[in-house]
Amino acid sequence: MADASPELSWNHIAEARERIAGKVNLTPVLTSASLDAQSGAHLYFKCENFQKCGAFKARGATNAVFALSAEEARRGVATHSSGNHAAALARAARLRGIPAYIVMPDNTPQVKRAAVARYGGAQTQISWCEPTLAARERAAREILAATGAVLVHPYDDLAVMAGQATAGVELLEAVPDLDVILCPVGGGGLLGGNAVAAKTLKPAIRVIGVEPAGAADAAHSFRSGRIQPSLKPNTIADGLRGTLGVRPFAAIRARVDDIVTVPDEAIIAAMRQLWEVMKIIIEPSGAVPYAAIASGVLSFPGQRVGLVLTGGNLDLDRLPWMTGAVALRP
Amino acid sequence: MADASPELSWNHIAEARERIAGKVNLTPVLTSASLDAQSGAHLYFKCENFQKCGAFKARGATNAVFALSAEEARRGVATHSSGNHAAALARAARLRGIPAYIVMPDNTPQVKRAAVARYGGAQTQISWCEPTLAARERAAREILAATGAVLVHPYDDLAVMAGQATAGVELLEAVPDLDVILCPVGGGGLLGGNAVAAKTLKPAIRVIGVEPAGAADAAHSFRSGRIQPSLKPNTIADGLRGTLGVRPFAAIRARVDDIVTVPDEAIIAAMRQLWEVMKIIIEPSGAVPYAAIASGVLSFPGQRVGLVLTGGNLDLDRLPWMTGAVALRP
Repeated sequence: MADASPELSWNHIAEARERIAGKVNLTPVLTSASLDAQSGAHLYFKCENFQKCGAFKARGATNAVFALSAEEARRGVATHSSGNHAAALARAARLRGIPAYIVMPDNTPQVKRAAVARYGGAQTQISWCEPTLAARERAAREILAATGAVLVHPYDDLAVMAGQATAGVELLEAVPDLDVILCPVGGGGLLGGNAVAAKTLKPAIRVIGVEPAGAADAAHSFRSGRIQPSLKPNTIADGLRGTLGVRPFAAIRARVDDIVTVPDEAIIAAMRQLWEVMKIIIEPSGAVPYAAIASGVLSFPGQRVGLVLTGGNLDLDRLPWMTGAVALRP
Repeated sequence: MADASPELSWNHIAEARERIAGKVNLTPVLTSASLDAQSGAHLYFKCENFQKCGAFKARGATNAVFALSAEEARRGVATHSSGNHAAALARAARLRGIPAYIVMPDNTPQVKRAAVARYGGAQTQISWCEPTLAARERAAREILAATGAVLVHPYDDLAVMAGQATAGVELLEAVPDLDVILCPVGGGGLLGGNAVAAKTLKPAIRVIGVEPAGAADAAHSFRSGRIQPSLKPNTIADGLRGTLGVRPFAAIRARVDDIVTVPDEAIIAAMRQLWEVMKIIIEPSGAVPYAAIASGVLSFPGQRVGLVLTGGNLDLDRLPWMTGAVALRP
């Protein structure tokens, strides 16, 4: 990306805040008396499911696209994500009026294809490839070579991390006396970015990552001190299957207090409880932090806990508590 | 109820507002750029799915319970609703520290039983009866005779209607320049109450009821000028199957501009679209007003339209777009 410095700083985040203001939503922070009573803590849910494109990824993608020089921007942006980042990048490129090149595996669910097409519009070009990381990277390289577009990585990118960090800034502005912030961790852009933001604004705060037990590479990496690849991830939290990025890992090592894991059963139960009690749609990845509290992996009696509900995009025909029924569908 | 005057007035509503302040939520008004683009109108969704107990019924029940004299209250309150009103009445009684007697048909779904028990607590007594209106009314009469409790009807009650009307007051305070308000209509408490509120605050506003085509008694009653019973209601919108009450009908005849109907297919499609786009959980009854817009039954080009999303309580194992799958479950 445009910024060549190796580590995320507060300046990146402050610039991101100004750059994306008015282009993404200032999302609400919701509370629930019954979840507070059940947990014994005061829970503050930062609702990124209400963000543009239905996920926090709009923050980082928008910051990355609008941080480009006019010369860089003219050639467009590219990514080989198939999830929320792809839709967010397509939308940000449309806002700036530049092309977006999205490489997707040819087994990408229809709901995700439709989201990219809907948010991106006419200047979005989707390319299909085989569903392997090697095929995705090769297809992306070919597009970069042919177009001169700028690759915007979904998390291993300081501008993207700085954008994601603005969620934590808003959360602390809404609830300044938080004791701890919980973030899901996949590639680490959200967790690393928000750790830098939160520890700058409030050095005494704790920042804890929560990860699916079936994709525990970040927890292993955090403990061993070096990045452990996510070899065979097996979790319903489809946004959290990737391997930690180098830049996020540097921020996480420096600023994060702990990374804990939760099993898929706890993620599904937490997701369902949030739907039932709070009446909001969150995707499995977004339920991961609350799963740590609801299942007792983490406990914060009497404390004020911020949780980032990262997104609300999922296939409503395939809810995780209906897998038995879904298997019977064509 | 305590108030013996035959017609709902603004004074009832103003009193309700003060009485329930701090006891129910001031719910948010949400908007969606994509639903605005699709409809060609400016849509303002009053989110009563985020209300206490997950539905606007908390407003009316709370007003009715706190409007009782100390002597009336001491003996408790009763109802033979099995839905959102029952949970709301149980909660309001708990807040006031008085007994609540709830008569439920013995085929009431587990999710509704659990809600009444959870919101009501120790002073709630649930009685079971056969699933007929006659059995419910008989069981309620027996409880009233034995306890001296006050019956709080779910809609044919001025204090209840005044409480429901506070949703419209808040909506107009949040968006003063609305051109029209759409409400679902079942027993008519919400529609009648909000029509009185809205036409008092802004005489030029239009207020339109929307009803499932499979339970179109209110539309028939509105056109014929006399209450037509809901004989064999057949709709997924379970909160809207009842017959108009006398007091709601008086308010509706005097103040409502029109009542239109929408088929269940349109209700289900609208509900699903609201889930997908707005990332909020609403029950089928709550999707009925938006169904009229999404299906083209109503069109308000360039106008500002308020819609009351009435509640978010439903069985997440039985979503209407999964009925085929659900039928295969035990």
